[in-house]
Amino acid sequence: MQDEVILEANNAFYAAFRQRDYLAMEELWAHRTPVCCYHPGWPGINGRDEVLDSWYSILVLGDTPDIRISDTSIIRNGNTALVFCTEHLGQVSLIATNTFVVEGDTWRLVHHQAAHLPN
Amino acid sequence: MQDEVILEANNAFYAAFRQRDYLAMEELWAHRTPVCCYHPGWPGINGRDEVLDSWYSILVLGDTPDIRISDTSIIRNGNTALVFCTEHLGQVSLIATNTFVVEGDTWRLVHHQAAHLPN
Repeated sequence: MQDEVILEANNAFYAAFRQRDYLAMEELWAHRTPVCCYHPGWPGINGRDEVLDSWYSILVLGDTPDIRISDTSIIRNGNTALVFCTEHLGQVSLIATNTFVVEGDTWRLVHHQAAHLPN
Repeated sequence: MQDEVILEANNAFYAAFRQRDYLAMEELWAHRTPVCCYHPGWPGINGRDEVLDSWYSILVLGDTPDIRISDTSIIRNGNTALVFCTEHLGQVSLIATNTFVVEGDTWRLVHHQAAHLPN
């Protein structure tokens, strides 16, 4: 049951990505727990404001691709869950890890890391 | 205090890497919690046996570089901790996330993901 809720949170992340919905993306990231984001080919980004700035530049200012995912799996440990998936952006594939923690009764993102797969 | 113990576990991971110590590496990975490993440029690897096979090929059969780390930080949530660092292998730098969980009284690895930083 928890796994379903976590997968819904992961799907909401990619829906926000796909729909360029910055406000939804902002809501998905943890409010109290520290956060960190590793976009492919970028230096690591620490801190909620800095991470959300990066998403603003990707979703609002950038040319967001039509992103789809497959091969989703979960490792859960108490109130923390790692969701693994393959991201598909046209002909490009990346492997991604999204880490969620429970804040209140909601699973929120504390970390996203995506990296290109070899062709 | 917990953060120090977690950093020690992270340092032990890189010591095993640097010293090509497969048995130490084997001991560091979780025994009961599922594990997953994303080596740079490899497809994702799931399962303890499969992850350890990959480390055997890197540490014992491969030409392991002299790896150093810097810029270490932690996000901890209960019995789970994400350790972020920059890996240095000669002129090459990677950003890495190592995720640890508590098993018994020991912090053990459940996930390693490293990706090249732009030059």
